[in-house]
This record gives sequence, C-alpha cells and structure tokens, in this order.
Amino acid sequence: MKRRSFLTGAGLTAVAASTLSAPAIASGKRKLKMVTTWPKNLPGVGVSAERLAKRIKALTEGQLDIKVYGAGQEVPALQSFDAVSSGAADVYHGAEYYWQGKSPAFNFFTTVPFGMTADELCAWIYHGGGQQLWDELSAGYNIKPFMAANTGVQMGGWFRKEINTLEDLKGLKMRMPGLGGEVFRRLGVAAVTLPGNEVYSALQSGAIDATEWIGPWNDLALGFYQIAPFYYWPGIHEPGPTLAAGWNLDVWNSFTDHQRIAIETACAMENDVCLADYNYHNAVALQTLVSEHDVKLRRFDPTILAALKKNSIEVVAEMADKDPMTKKVHASFKKSLDMQRKWTTIADQAFLNARDPQE
Amino acid sequence: MKRRSFLTGAGLTAVAASTLSAPAIASGKRKLKMVTTWPKNLPGVGVSAERLAKRIKALTEGQLDIKVYGAGQEVPALQSFDAVSSGAADVYHGAEYYWQGKSPAFNFFTTVPFGMTADELCAWIYHGGGQQLWDELSAGYNIKPFMAANTGVQMGGWFRKEINTLEDLKGLKMRMPGLGGEVFRRLGVAAVTLPGNEVYSALQSGAIDATEWIGPWNDLALGFYQIAPFYYWPGIHEPGPTLAAGWNLDVWNSFTDHQRIAIETACAMENDVCLADYNYHNAVALQTLVSEHDVKLRRFDPTILAALKKNSIEVVAEMADKDPMTKKVHASFKKSLDMQRKWTTIADQAFLNARDPQE
Repeated sequence: MKRRSFLTGAGLTAVAASTLSAPAIASGKRKLKMVTTWPKNLPGVGVSAERLAKRIKALTEGQLDIKVYGAGQEVPALQSFDAVSSGAADVYHGAEYYWQGKSPAFNFFTTVPFGMTADELCAWIYHGGGQQLWDELSAGYNIKPFMAANTGVQMGGWFRKEINTLEDLKGLKMRMPGLGGEVFRRLGVAAVTLPGNEVYSALQSGAIDATEWIGPWNDLALGFYQIAPFYYWPGIHEPGPTLAAGWNLDVWNSFTDHQRIAIETACAMENDVCLADYNYHNAVALQTLVSEHDVKLRRFDPTILAALKKNSIEVVAEMADKDPMTKKVHASFKKSLDMQRKWTTIADQAFLNARDPQE
Repeated sequence: MKRRSFLTGAGLTAVAASTLSAPAIASGKRKLKMVTTWPKNLPGVGVSAERLAKRIKALTEGQLDIKVYGAGQEVPALQSFDAVSSGAADVYHGAEYYWQGKSPAFNFFTTVPFGMTADELCAWIYHGGGQQLWDELSAGYNIKPFMAANTGVQMGGWFRKEINTLEDLKGLKMRMPGLGGEVFRRLGVAAVTLPGNEVYSALQSGAIDATEWIGPWNDLALGFYQIAPFYYWPGIHEPGPTLAAGWNLDVWNSFTDHQRIAIETACAMENDVCLADYNYHNAVALQTLVSEHDVKLRRFDPTILAALKKNSIEVVAEMADKDPMTKKVHASFKKSLDMQRKWTTIADQAFLNARDPQE
C-alpha cells in the first residue's frame, strides 16, 4: 500500500553511499541504536520497543540489529527526539507529544483531550492524510515517523478523596502534564508535571492530592491504590495515544527498499499488537485492583465531563492557532474526527451501549 | 513475540524437503495461489487480500509470489477452505464463519452476535490464548490461520419500512445469514440467506423486505438505499468481524523461518490497516448516503435491542454446546469477553459517551 511512497523518496542510493561506511554496506549488517522515553522493558510500552526491534531484525534477517536503550541510559527520555534528529541515535520509540515544545502539532500524532480513539487515529493516519502531514512535520527535524504502539484509552486518575462536583476540583494538586493539565487547570486544578518515579512519594507526602498515569496495567505496578483509593473514569485527556518510532531521516534514506518495507510492516504490526496488549492486560489488572486491593471505581460526574469537554475544545483550538503547520495539521485532524465520530457513534459506541447499557 | 511458536513447529526442514520439488527449493522462488471469498478487488475485503499478497511478496523479496483469485475464479467462495485444506490452493482470505458447517467453533474467530469488538477480539487472539485455540481447531483441517483484516462494526440493515416495535419484525422477510439470522428468526423474522449479487433484485421484486450487508462503504456501492431507505443501527450481529488468512499446513511447514515471520507480520499489519480502511471509508460513505441519497438513519428501539441481546446469548450458548472443541473455544472466548467488557465499559465506551452523549 505504501510502497509507492518508498519509491518516491529522495536519492536512496546516493544517500546510502554518503552516510554509511564501506564495510557496513559490504557486509549488509548494521548495528542501530534505539533510544526510548520509557524505562527499559516497562510492561506495555517498554516491552513494545523491544518487540519492535526484534521483529525488524528478524524481518531483515539480521541486517538491522537494533539495540534498545531505556530512558536515561543514553540520553534522558525527553532528549530522545534531539538525539535522533542529530544522528546521535538512529531511532526513538516514544510519544510525539513530548516534542510539543518543538511544535504543538506533534500533539495530534499522539492524542489530544477529547480527540480521537486509537481506531479513529489509525483511520486518519493510514487513510485520511495523517501520515503525509506527519512526514512533512517531522522532516523539518530530519525524522521519519511511524505509528508503532498504542496504550488505548487511559484512566481519569487516582484521587485521595471523592470528586463529586466541579467545586471539589478547585485547588486540588494533581499530577497531569501537557494539554490535559491545561484543561484541568482551567477548572481550578493546580496541575503539575512530575516524572513517573516521583509520583508515589509525592502522593504519600501530600505534595499532590491526585495523579493520572496510564491505565490499570501500568498503574497497578506503581501502587497508587495504596494511597489514593478512588480511581476515576473515563480518561478524557488521552483517549487512545499512539506511540511512535521516529527514524533519523538520513538513516532512513540509507536503508534499502526492502529494509524500509520491513520497518513499516513491523511498526504497523506493533501498533496492532500493543493496543491489544494494553486492552487485555488493563482488563486483567482492573480485576486485581478491584477484587484484591479494594479500589473504588468512580465515574466522573456528567457536569465535570461536560466542563472538561468545553475546556478541551478551547485548549486544542488555541494551541492550533500558534503556527501555520499546527493549524494545517489541526484542520486535517478536525475534519477527519468530525466525519469519523458520526460513524463511531452509530457503530462502536451504539453497539457497546446496546451490549452494556450505561446510564 | 511469536518467534518461539515458529521454532516449536514440527520438523521444519524435513517437511520442506518432502513437500517441495527440488527446483522450487533451489531457486527460492515459489508461486502460490490465494483463493478468496470476495469478488476480485471488492473495495475493503477484496483489496485487503491483494494488499496482503503484495506485502508478503515484498517482505520475502519476491520469494513468495502469491496470485489472488476472486470468488468463483478457481473455486466457489465457500469451497475456499476445502481447496486450501486439500492443497488445491495454498492460502485463503475469507471469513472463518463460512466454515461453521465443519465446526461451529469457527464462528468465534470471525464474530458472534453481541460478542467482541475488533479491539476485544485482537486482545483475545494475540494475548488471551485465542490464537492457540484457533491453531488447534484449524490444524484438524490441515490449516494454519491468522487474523488478516477486519470490517469493524457492521450496520443493522436496510428496511423498506420503519421498525418501531418487536411486532413490526414479525413475518418480515430479511436477508440475514448465519447466527444473526437465527437470532432474528427467534423474533419472528423470516431470515434467509442470499449471495450479495442477488440481494438488490430480491429487494426490488419484494422477495425480501430487508437486508443486512456490511456497512456504508460496501452498502453504498450496491445501491440498497434506492429501494429500502431506512438504514438501521447498530449492527449487533457482527460487532467487528475479523477476516482470516488460512494457510495449507504442509505449505506453511515448508516455509523458512523468515518467510513465516514475514507472513505473520504482513497479516498483522493488514489487520490494522483494513480496520482503519473500513472505519475511514464507512465514515465517508455515511456522509454521502445521508447528504446525497436522503437515507433515513434509524436506531433500533431499546426493546428490540434487548430482545436481540437475550436471543443472541441463547443462540451462541446453544451452538457452543454442540461439540467439545466448540465448547472449549466458547469457554475461552466468554471468559475473555466477560473480563474485557468491564474494561471496555469504563474505557472506550465511557470516553465515547462523554464525547458524544447518547440518550
């Protein structure tokens, strides 16, 4: 399907000759470096990076031998993009919204509050022009991106006390980074950004009252339930974040046609397999949290959800207005989402509501 | 991820030597025959089969050169399974529920009424033991299966008149095959099976009053809206049917390790890309149907959905009781679904209901 796009790439052979040492070309074997924004082998996303690297090696019969580095092993997590852009690393596995400081447009290629589900994002990226815009955005930083994992819908977060009204959110100190943080901030929440390994102690000391993380699978491991027993749903700030494999563009251009096809196929497989991994293991962990750890599942009140939705649309629209590329990406994203949600509503959503009616 | 399973396959080298002619092994190039249950290049599923064949060829650098045959070109659609089982063809691309005459268990590997969504099916197949059971079932027929496409949630069907009550369904002649047909039959519908190319004229002549097909993308092309203007949602009979690539097991065993990995990866990519294709183009076609063809979208009344749900559970349970293998598959399917729906409810479903509240 995408083969044509490989063939229109710029000067494959010439670039290969200029960027590779002669012995590497001769043997056909290359050692590549993958930096990631996750702890090494973190269940879900960390394992996903390893699985992708192994699959690419197998598909290229060992030609592309990718060593995976956990966050901080080669570079700090958030410097993965710069490392690949400069050529210090060959590829990253991470979340594009970490690079929103470069351009807010990157948010759309992970997730935005009240945005697309994983399935809607795939529709836009694969078939609705999303990949082309993403290529254009990333090429400005010498990077070629692919979807390569997805966590599915995230949870709303862990709270020490029940949240029944908008008033209960006011002044609450909550770990909630990025656009989601800004959405909650507009409801009076003191949203802060903390790395994962500091969240538990911050909750314990009372430095924060609440935190979002990912979903049951990853959250269970961090033990938040021991301090903040109220687990709220749904997570509207990240409704199906895709994670990306971003390749240094010179390295990408130096690959053979077959190597590129192998990479593209492996990334798409990982996108399918990782989402399923999260859905399956989130379900398993949810059972454990409720039956063994007495976690109290709570749904956000409709008035809170409505306020979050209003603020989400505003936050995303304001962000999109910041530069021409972000505006262009937002226009495409919004057009696809507005069209797709009409289908999702009468398809997936209506089926689920028929199967398990929700009030 | 699945590499281990390749290596535990029975006697790879020995089988290769015994089933392949010497010249084929020597050249490393093989011409393979894919039969399908779809018209050649039918948008969606037919194109999916072609895309899969091309991808496998590219990943194996031309070693596996697969020619795709439309339904009826080599064998009739529903004989695809037997053709592959016997070795007359090497692989089929089709829906497993077409083989329910062999064993009702095959239904679970496509879809069952009020069963799993596409995402839930992926969770079960990839991570919940589904693939192992499927391998066991199919090995009994000399076949190795993979998920290799998905149409997403289907529509409820086209009706000449509005359906407001259970009474309106009684005596209605409707094209609705398989388990879905049995579910509607229990509500008094005269459910019949008709091949796709006969449905339009049957509707036109009044031989039938209603029909289900797939979804907006494929339905638009067949022009049902010209005769039956009421388009009902949701389709509860097929909430995310996966389509399969089934390989003759001797042929599969004769492949090299690399060829198997290439096939597995290509199938998983196609599973991701095809679902996205349906979601995107169903959304496009839905717009066209409503704005250009004045189609009346109608939601099934909650009393009708509740009756369909009750009957679906009964039909599936009765079917599952028919033989030990079907019972075993149903037990695994049901366990996974019962666990996963608790997650889906607070994740995807809750997010969608927050984004686009449905009464």
